[in-house]
Amino acid sequence: MMMATTCITSLPNLSVVSKKVKQFISKYISSSSAKGVVIGLSGGLDSSVTLKLATDALGPTKIFGLMMPSDTTPKEDTDHATEFAESLKIKYRIIDIMPVIEKYEKILPAADKRVRGNLMARIRMNLLYYYAGTKKYLVVGTSDKSELQIGYFSKWGDGAADIMPIADLYKTQVRALARYLQIPAEIVEKKSSPRLWGNHLAEEEIGMNYDTIDSILFCLIDERKSPKAVAKKLAIPASKVQKVKEMIDSSSHKRGIPKIAYLKKSNI
Amino acid sequence: MMMATTCITSLPNLSVVSKKVKQFISKYISSSSAKGVVIGLSGGLDSSVTLKLATDALGPTKIFGLMMPSDTTPKEDTDHATEFAESLKIKYRIIDIMPVIEKYEKILPAADKRVRGNLMARIRMNLLYYYAGTKKYLVVGTSDKSELQIGYFSKWGDGAADIMPIADLYKTQVRALARYLQIPAEIVEKKSSPRLWGNHLAEEEIGMNYDTIDSILFCLIDERKSPKAVAKKLAIPASKVQKVKEMIDSSSHKRGIPKIAYLKKSNI
Repeated sequence: MMMATTCITSLPNLSVVSKKVKQFISKYISSSSAKGVVIGLSGGLDSSVTLKLATDALGPTKIFGLMMPSDTTPKEDTDHATEFAESLKIKYRIIDIMPVIEKYEKILPAADKRVRGNLMARIRMNLLYYYAGTKKYLVVGTSDKSELQIGYFSKWGDGAADIMPIADLYKTQVRALARYLQIPAEIVEKKSSPRLWGNHLAEEEIGMNYDTIDSILFCLIDERKSPKAVAKKLAIPASKVQKVKEMIDSSSHKRGIPKIAYLKKSNI
Repeated sequence: MMMATTCITSLPNLSVVSKKVKQFISKYISSSSAKGVVIGLSGGLDSSVTLKLATDALGPTKIFGLMMPSDTTPKEDTDHATEFAESLKIKYRIIDIMPVIEKYEKILPAADKRVRGNLMARIRMNLLYYYAGTKKYLVVGTSDKSELQIGYFSKWGDGAADIMPIADLYKTQVRALARYLQIPAEIVEKKSSPRLWGNHLAEEEIGMNYDTIDSILFCLIDERKSPKAVAKKLAIPASKVQKVKEMIDSSSHKRGIPKIAYLKKSNI
């Protein structure tokens, strides 16, 4: 992974990154009429880093955190989220989303865990926007660049927000940034998981670890190399690069707005 | 309104428009791995036109309609939707969303009608995507260009879909298309309403009728005229044009993807 690591560290240093992200948050909020921001807090890496940067940028009184555990959320996740929120002195609330999920399930046909997981993510979006609506706040999304580029998120669920401060940082960079920001170790070192079903681990589901994914993504996207050149540069099987390439391509619809039938253009 | 009407009719004729939209739907569905489409049916103009075009394009067996009435949905709307679905021989289901709304309201603080209305629209999106997920279908959005451009929709609610076939047609054009497609008169002539609260009429809430809105939008967007030139051309007060201009500008965030903090660009 030496070559890969070399790719990634060609980005700005963490002090600069952290300053730029905070500036982005401050600027966007002050240019809007929003009085603050709502953030969904899972106790995981991405939401903790986003929360820390938003709190540094806006001050704790302008932040509202929402923990939204379900039956697939380990108790320690909510504990981590709560302890971290307390340490930053922000306002927060824990809402168990199980009663809502169960009500949906009562009126809907059975579905597999993936469909149920997406519903969970969308219910969380509903709640974040409900609070944002009542408080005149904006919703801050917590997705990172790795997840967004390979489509590892729920369309209109965690993929839906007003601003996404860490969306141009790969997962491994977010982890480095978390250490730099002194986020508690139990959060930084936790294995990445969307927790949409039991024992749901990101790297297992994707079939690759984030060091590899990020190296491939960086070479493909930022360095615009061909899949063949990436495999050679990183000294990994072409099939791994191809798999990531296919994840990028097949998820492009999740990163865009709905596809519109433009009537004056040649595409229809 | 003579001048305005002249603007709008500079678009292709309804036979061409209808053919192009159907081609767009067929092409997009056949190029994806989707087995069909889910459409939310309100009994209103936009969803009925979208349903008719999708059914003509794909055949009735590939369509699943979902009526999702709440306590602010007039019974006649669901009747209109049901009768039209029956006449097209598509599969459909009526789901009363009140039990779900009430469950949300039990765990959330009180909110004004606008926040509650947005929640309704998002719950409907959740249900459409749940069915799409279980059936391997895509979600067809029913927004028209007038609503989209002035931001008259719920972000990540009715504004969230996979494809939007009539999103490049203004409301007045959709109404003309509906007559051409022989959609039942009680649907075509019904006053436009999102039904997010009682007595919720679009033109009343916006403070202008769609003839005026569409003429202004067409001159501003399609003809790229200045607000001053639009007011002169349409012989209407500059304040009306300015109001529409402000609606376009303030809703641009609803038509895009979440705002990302790009770390290598100059905007942060």
